[in-house]
Amino acid sequence: MVYSPNMKLSIVLSTQPAQFQAATFKGDLETNLASIASLGYDGVELAIRDPKLVSLDQLDELVGKYGLKVPAIGTGQAWGEEGLSFTDPNPTVRRAAIERIKSHIPVAARFQSIIIIGLIRGIVKPGISDEQAMNWLIDALRECSEAASLHGTRLALEPINRYETTLINNVGQGVELIERVGVDNFGLLLDTFHMNIEEQVIEDSMRTCGKHIFHFHVADSNRWHPGGGHLNFKSILETLSSTGYAGWVSGEFLPKPDAITAAKKCIAHLHEM
Amino acid sequence: MVYSPNMKLSIVLSTQPAQFQAATFKGDLETNLASIASLGYDGVELAIRDPKLVSLDQLDELVGKYGLKVPAIGTGQAWGEEGLSFTDPNPTVRRAAIERIKSHIPVAARFQSIIIIGLIRGIVKPGISDEQAMNWLIDALRECSEAASLHGTRLALEPINRYETTLINNVGQGVELIERVGVDNFGLLLDTFHMNIEEQVIEDSMRTCGKHIFHFHVADSNRWHPGGGHLNFKSILETLSSTGYAGWVSGEFLPKPDAITAAKKCIAHLHEM
Repeated sequence: MVYSPNMKLSIVLSTQPAQFQAATFKGDLETNLASIASLGYDGVELAIRDPKLVSLDQLDELVGKYGLKVPAIGTGQAWGEEGLSFTDPNPTVRRAAIERIKSHIPVAARFQSIIIIGLIRGIVKPGISDEQAMNWLIDALRECSEAASLHGTRLALEPINRYETTLINNVGQGVELIERVGVDNFGLLLDTFHMNIEEQVIEDSMRTCGKHIFHFHVADSNRWHPGGGHLNFKSILETLSSTGYAGWVSGEFLPKPDAITAAKKCIAHLHEM
Repeated sequence: MVYSPNMKLSIVLSTQPAQFQAATFKGDLETNLASIASLGYDGVELAIRDPKLVSLDQLDELVGKYGLKVPAIGTGQAWGEEGLSFTDPNPTVRRAAIERIKSHIPVAARFQSIIIIGLIRGIVKPGISDEQAMNWLIDALRECSEAASLHGTRLALEPINRYETTLINNVGQGVELIERVGVDNFGLLLDTFHMNIEEQVIEDSMRTCGKHIFHFHVADSNRWHPGGGHLNFKSILETLSSTGYAGWVSGEFLPKPDAITAAKKCIAHLHEM
């Protein structure tokens, strides 16, 4: 049994205008939450650039109104739109990135969400050694994870393909990073689109990651909804289940041919297997 | 039978220091040609930035000495290192790109090579409409193809994944471009690494391209040698054969763990099927 009623499905939603085109739903929050719930999703993954720009009470009321959970909070817009990064040569920028992630902790604690560390980890800038960048990254992740730990919150770093970052592209690098950070509430978010490019064998890497899988993104090989490309989601979800994963499966894909159609087809494809 | 003695295998070699990291062999020309021949390759695909910097007689003598053919000439370094492009807003740059490609024709005619149009097609620059860029691209391709036609030479444009160019990412766009250019000696170079990201179903796209496949690159899903990732080369090469393709299969992959090992493993993987 691949797709079971126990598999909790969510989809990425941006709460603010975002440049990141793989955020599937953009626009008016309530309209989108209503659509997402009506399509059969159990939750929304929120891409939040800055928590202080979001009314938590309003958000809580809205997601509650539509019976949705918030399994994870995406933070990459702070990199894309403000340039915040754990590995910037400027210590003020690194500090701002750490404080920004810490500011997500009360949100995550309230919604019992995982905090995603995506592009905010930064890239290795010219003149900076890989070792230096890794040390900054590890220090930042440890500080944020320890702060999150006090609220029972977890952080998940997403290995992202080589074209989008130079730091942590694959699961092997991610698992090594986890060992170096050395705190229990820090793990990985695996994304099938990135794994298709970076992993030698997707299912093997998932098994290697095992209990460190904190969150899971589905997008097909071309970043369309599952079923829009050539990935074998039956095998992938069976493998996910075999690791003991009890978390969410969250759709982060291009809104093609449009957001509603893509969201419908994602659910249909995962059901039909 | 997937791999047959009739399948002609080549590998990419740069004749000048190049930044493009997927050029598998870089360095001293004769040493590399000797290595390539000794590994069992039938040909070398030459990445040439500027033909006027290469001694054709020396090159001809060298490849002949090692019994190698030159099935294709890569031209992307003129973009990577000089910024030449068919779609630059500056008409002087566009003209220089066209003249550079035309200057490859005598080389291609001498070696009976295909001229590859890769990154030199350019990207859609800010302020330029997609339609304008496409029109410049079509005009340039038509002019170059018509010039090449007089020497019995063919041009092949490579669909390249979304992260490296904004113009012609997939086979469907390539086939539409072929129809608009409308000359018989212009076709496509298909690359398995790019197809893994961009094609809904790789084999279907290959069949759609059919007789327009002029050249074929192999690299695995992670741009390692075939066998280093998760692509099904048995199915891919069977499909290639089914289209009636009688050209070369050329390895363009990262030199990992090193160039020689990668080149050996490519041949071994294609043989073992």
